[in-house]
Amino acid sequence: MQILQEKIRRYGQVIDNRIIKVDSFLNHQLDIELFNEMGKEFKKRFKDKKITKILTLESSGIAIACITAQYFHVPVIFAKKHEAANLALHTYQAEVYSFTKGKTYKIRVAGEYLQIQDRILIIDDFLAHGQAVNGLLEIAEQAGAEVVGIGIVIEKGFQKGREKIKRADLQLESLAIIEAIQDGKIIFK
Amino acid sequence: MQILQEKIRRYGQVIDNRIIKVDSFLNHQLDIELFNEMGKEFKKRFKDKKITKILTLESSGIAIACITAQYFHVPVIFAKKHEAANLALHTYQAEVYSFTKGKTYKIRVAGEYLQIQDRILIIDDFLAHGQAVNGLLEIAEQAGAEVVGIGIVIEKGFQKGREKIKRADLQLESLAIIEAIQDGKIIFK
Repeated sequence: MQILQEKIRRYGQVIDNRIIKVDSFLNHQLDIELFNEMGKEFKKRFKDKKITKILTLESSGIAIACITAQYFHVPVIFAKKHEAANLALHTYQAEVYSFTKGKTYKIRVAGEYLQIQDRILIIDDFLAHGQAVNGLLEIAEQAGAEVVGIGIVIEKGFQKGREKIKRADLQLESLAIIEAIQDGKIIFK
Repeated sequence: MQILQEKIRRYGQVIDNRIIKVDSFLNHQLDIELFNEMGKEFKKRFKDKKITKILTLESSGIAIACITAQYFHVPVIFAKKHEAANLALHTYQAEVYSFTKGKTYKIRVAGEYLQIQDRILIIDDFLAHGQAVNGLLEIAEQAGAEVVGIGIVIEKGFQKGREKIKRADLQLESLAIIEAIQDGKIIFK
């Protein structure tokens, strides 16, 4: 997606040739007009998938999932990452390792919000090592729901998350793919 | 707001005559069509305020802030609540006490996203004791930005948050106000 690449190139800050900080439009300040363009693009790429729900992860997946959901006319469910008082008795859960934070955390979805007849689109802001997506896949599997696609805003191709995703058969669409970072410069695929 | 009251009455779960759990449409599964109605309503109530940014708090404020922002054509900034790697050197911060969790946490916004010329609408899902709104007000004040309104989805009137808000002069709009919970029954104002 051209306008997304331009935003990343213009406003993305590279840290340690590994982390791309896009707080000015994606992860702290949210550029809602851009999000709408991304939502339309996801709709175009997954239009025949008969999606019934969008599944994402708090906090940074919520915004893009919500704007995108408007184009599919479906609800969003976000997996809870932080201790939630009074979640539910029956939950689906998975463990996710964060390379950025160097620790494992649990993600959870209350049992009542995913059904066996659901056709799920997973949406997330970044694909790095594939940990978060794999956690969400596990949760959908526990619910017996079918995941029909994965939509990512920025894929860090050099971290090989795509190859680590448990379901190689799934349609995985990234709106921008970063192939490499060399001397602080971002190279797109 | 009639349709919101109906949703709360139909799907809200009351815990200990004090907590209203609305996970099925507001805090875990997100009813995006309802969010759009709420966004339109906020626009109607704050239409002459010349708002330049919406400020909210992760995680549960993000979704409603983003959908609402579409009607104002402004970006959203969400205060970070959880440890964020690489946030920024210069941040505005405030301490917020959570009655639900019984502890104080820090909320932070990177310095570069709030300016002195900004006219801010604060959006949040719940108003209970007013702690989160006061924290956001403090952050805006540190930035020298003007808060011109506060938009809340559900106000728990019986917890008197409205009276505890530091800026009694501000326009505060709640889409549903719960006056009391009696024997598990929700009574709206």
